[in-house]
Amino acid sequence: MGDQYQQIGEAFVKHYYSTFDTNRAGLVSLYQGNSMLSFEGETFMGAEAIVQKLANLSFQRVQHQVTTFDVQPVVAAQPNSILVFVSGQLLVDDSTNPIKFSQTFHLMPKEGGYWVHNDMFRLNYG
Amino acid sequence: MGDQYQQIGEAFVKHYYSTFDTNRAGLVSLYQGNSMLSFEGETFMGAEAIVQKLANLSFQRVQHQVTTFDVQPVVAAQPNSILVFVSGQLLVDDSTNPIKFSQTFHLMPKEGGYWVHNDMFRLNYG
Repeated sequence: MGDQYQQIGEAFVKHYYSTFDTNRAGLVSLYQGNSMLSFEGETFMGAEAIVQKLANLSFQRVQHQVTTFDVQPVVAAQPNSILVFVSGQLLVDDSTNPIKFSQTFHLMPKEGGYWVHNDMFRLNYG
Repeated sequence: MGDQYQQIGEAFVKHYYSTFDTNRAGLVSLYQGNSMLSFEGETFMGAEAIVQKLANLSFQRVQHQVTTFDVQPVVAAQPNSILVFVSGQLLVDDSTNPIKFSQTFHLMPKEGGYWVHNDMFRLNYG
């Protein structure tokens, strides 16, 4: 599979969730105009609509704890795009009950990095 | 998003899990030589290796119950490929305790259908 993809995926996961947990509006730079988000079955298109949704989620504080992440290159695409599949737990506000989630990102190469083309998020109540 | 993708994703999900639950070896026709499977952190490449892994899982009977599935086209790819993100429950053998799972498929178009380029599977113990 190549360690390079694993490293890119790991760096992305760290960057994404640390940005989410500290500055949700800052996620806008990761998306582009034809990015898509499926969030608990609702669909949003484009960086602005996606980040508006994420920024307006009804908690004040959130902490993502990543349990597993898997990374695969899309070798049939040139240059390769990358899939990142995450499972983890969320802690919101003062709750001490973590909520399980899983999330898939499809990262497309751009000059000097990657952008999020597809983002699919689901809660898995334990 | 287009209902066509939703319909393709739904048909795929039904076909995939009904084949898995009745004739695991029959899944081989869904994969190709550069398909990849991440199964609980282990990676397998190519249709034969993938289906050998799936066919040798250590249960006799399995039943997948799909709870949610989300479908997104990859519009930056021409023709569009499709992402399908599933959450559900597994029942194996005589167990009455379902095990939660989540799974992501990346479907690539081919003549008359789609093949599974990327397949990422994780159990989420409840």
